[in-house]
Amino acid sequence: MVRMIDIITKKRDNVELTKEEIKTFVEGYTNGDIPDYQASSLLMAIFLNGMTKDEVSALTMEMVDSGDKIDLSDINGVKVDKHSTGGVGDTTTLVLAPLVAAVGVPVPKMSGRGLGHTGGTVDKLEAMEGFHVELSQEEFVNLVNEQKLALVGQSGNLTPADKLIYALRDVTGTVNSIPLIASSIMSKKIAAGADGIVLDVKVGDGAFMKNEKDAEALAHTMVQIGNSVGRNTMAVISSMEEPLGYAIGNALEVIEAIDTLKGEGPEDLTELSLVLGSQMVVLGKKADTLEEAREMLEKAIEDGSALEKFRQLIESQGGNGDVIDDYNLLPTAEYKVEVKSDVSGYVTQIESENMGVAASILGAGRETKESEIDLAVGIVLEKKVGDKVETGDTLAVIHSNKENVDDVIERVKNCYSFGDDEVHPTLIKKVITE
Amino acid sequence: MVRMIDIITKKRDNVELTKEEIKTFVEGYTNGDIPDYQASSLLMAIFLNGMTKDEVSALTMEMVDSGDKIDLSDINGVKVDKHSTGGVGDTTTLVLAPLVAAVGVPVPKMSGRGLGHTGGTVDKLEAMEGFHVELSQEEFVNLVNEQKLALVGQSGNLTPADKLIYALRDVTGTVNSIPLIASSIMSKKIAAGADGIVLDVKVGDGAFMKNEKDAEALAHTMVQIGNSVGRNTMAVISSMEEPLGYAIGNALEVIEAIDTLKGEGPEDLTELSLVLGSQMVVLGKKADTLEEAREMLEKAIEDGSALEKFRQLIESQGGNGDVIDDYNLLPTAEYKVEVKSDVSGYVTQIESENMGVAASILGAGRETKESEIDLAVGIVLEKKVGDKVETGDTLAVIHSNKENVDDVIERVKNCYSFGDDEVHPTLIKKVITE
Repeated sequence: MVRMIDIITKKRDNVELTKEEIKTFVEGYTNGDIPDYQASSLLMAIFLNGMTKDEVSALTMEMVDSGDKIDLSDINGVKVDKHSTGGVGDTTTLVLAPLVAAVGVPVPKMSGRGLGHTGGTVDKLEAMEGFHVELSQEEFVNLVNEQKLALVGQSGNLTPADKLIYALRDVTGTVNSIPLIASSIMSKKIAAGADGIVLDVKVGDGAFMKNEKDAEALAHTMVQIGNSVGRNTMAVISSMEEPLGYAIGNALEVIEAIDTLKGEGPEDLTELSLVLGSQMVVLGKKADTLEEAREMLEKAIEDGSALEKFRQLIESQGGNGDVIDDYNLLPTAEYKVEVKSDVSGYVTQIESENMGVAASILGAGRETKESEIDLAVGIVLEKKVGDKVETGDTLAVIHSNKENVDDVIERVKNCYSFGDDEVHPTLIKKVITE
Repeated sequence: MVRMIDIITKKRDNVELTKEEIKTFVEGYTNGDIPDYQASSLLMAIFLNGMTKDEVSALTMEMVDSGDKIDLSDINGVKVDKHSTGGVGDTTTLVLAPLVAAVGVPVPKMSGRGLGHTGGTVDKLEAMEGFHVELSQEEFVNLVNEQKLALVGQSGNLTPADKLIYALRDVTGTVNSIPLIASSIMSKKIAAGADGIVLDVKVGDGAFMKNEKDAEALAHTMVQIGNSVGRNTMAVISSMEEPLGYAIGNALEVIEAIDTLKGEGPEDLTELSLVLGSQMVVLGKKADTLEEAREMLEKAIEDGSALEKFRQLIESQGGNGDVIDDYNLLPTAEYKVEVKSDVSGYVTQIESENMGVAASILGAGRETKESEIDLAVGIVLEKKVGDKVETGDTLAVIHSNKENVDDVIERVKNCYSFGDDEVHPTLIKKVITE
């Protein structure tokens, strides 16, 4: 019988824990045998002493085993999932799902509503009237087999150990630990049943990881976990020095995703979608190289097949496919207020985190599970990093259902930094495949 | 308003905590506002990142301020207290109290019963029939002013924060931290009201500190705490490679103490008592140098005044002073069983910890607060480190009230290690005055 106090002492003294010891901790904490105060002591020791590759893989798999596991074996082909480590105005899932499905990769997407500055993918899709994500397991499997794409709301009791451990980390100063972040993310992805996993690790002011070194370490750790447990995994490190794309808000992001599938989207969102999508296509075994995969995806945008896949998704889940041609079918906000620049210069940075807060103040996000989301509201940027701005130019447009948005105007303005020289941001910092 | 999560994060990131932050933690944890899981997370961060001198002094004083403080101001002279960091068969308090009182240093001794292999100082003294430690504050003060020496049982609510924090450390792998040990010990000594403090830091297999480097670090930390808060403090680092003296047991240790006051005690116990006593006399301002103090103490043993001081203590607190001349007045065990050596060679080590457990099995100690102690039983060593032993020689004598002590014989035998070469142990490793 392994005692928790001995596990704590061992980790404290920087000795590698065995699988058995990690199992004792995860099982004991999940079933309530191990008290919070011992778990938090171990978590701080892990935070400060780190974890070996074997430890972090074992921790991940114990969290997977703590709850239900989704069985996707009835779906034909190699199933590839994508995960992004947070970010503001991140519309990639809406673009990627139809894009890679269009070239034959099955996308059985499970998404949540989530808390945050804007809603989750489910909220965004529900901005289209009639669209619903309540599918039976059989409907879900059949849809993916027929059309390669379906989207279902999160169900089942996935990784309860991760939920408990995350809640404790949140109040004990142990959130920002690479092995703990990596195992938390990977356990959820693995329990969700995909064969391959593509990760988008955000780096910069608005992201979990503030610098490239930490982002790389997190990406390597997650890729190693995935590969060590038989899930092919790749990662991209992408910049969060400004929000991705122009739109922050639910219906606004749906419009931006459709624009992107039409080949008319923002440059950065398009590029990131193609990079992540290429990895998904390679892991899904529909192409041998990233270059070949990218050509396939570019063609799917050009020939309209990606856009048609999105229309098919909408119609098969109760929505009106005409939204693709008529954005007025989406909820729209009553007021559109322009945010004008007080200064002139080149935009050097746009604080993503604060821009998200601004959208949230308008009602685009949820603070508690019970909060109502206003699907119409949000912010559309007119100026991005590298753009030249003159005094009086419009920086962004606020879409609001309340008339007075002075506080939001001020906040949006403050997100912008200016300089005398043109800055050219690098969106994709690194691609990590092992 | 300082938040606990920010205090944890700061210590985790190795940034020095302010007095205000340490106060928030100690007060909040003591009154129940801060939950165990946050306190244990901070304790692990302290364990792994350490504490600065200012932090450890602040922690100590916050623990002192968490409860009652003893006021010894009605006692004339400079009051000096002594503390030993654990040890087995440690009879020094019984020797030191009358010894330094005999040369004029006031000794207002407060002692507990305590848990452990043998009883506390109070239990040992109660082996003398009639001796009692229930004194009113007035009786206690008057006795010390009259005869320089009195012994009272622990009372009041001293350092409740230390008790709570210690209990949490015990179950979260954070006991063996030098700043936490040092602040725990010093907070109790400071709250107990002495002007000067002499510390006996044990080092070796049977002690808290397993090596000299750690023992020195602990001693320095405690001396710095004491001096930084206006209590003159000195420390000695002494070896625990074997039990101190020959006797382990309550009445047995009283006999050994009396022998030592007569100048007939074990060499190591006598030496340690003189070294610690000299520091007490200097801190008590009865001598200018350690050499001068030592001469005074040696004289007090030679001329019988230290022994007479002990007789005075016994008689003033209800005991029979004749015990000094007639050890039969003390409880004696029914059986005396010799432990014979199976091998020959020089004794190289005697495991103190295990020898203590052997005494405890005989009934000399207490496992819970409610346990009854058998004051008569224990172990008297015949061979110590450096002695030559032939097969069949008596290693030790077991004093027991049960006939069958085969398990104890085996355990005592196993405590001894032998070698081919004579080992000469160094009892006093170092004297630390700053």
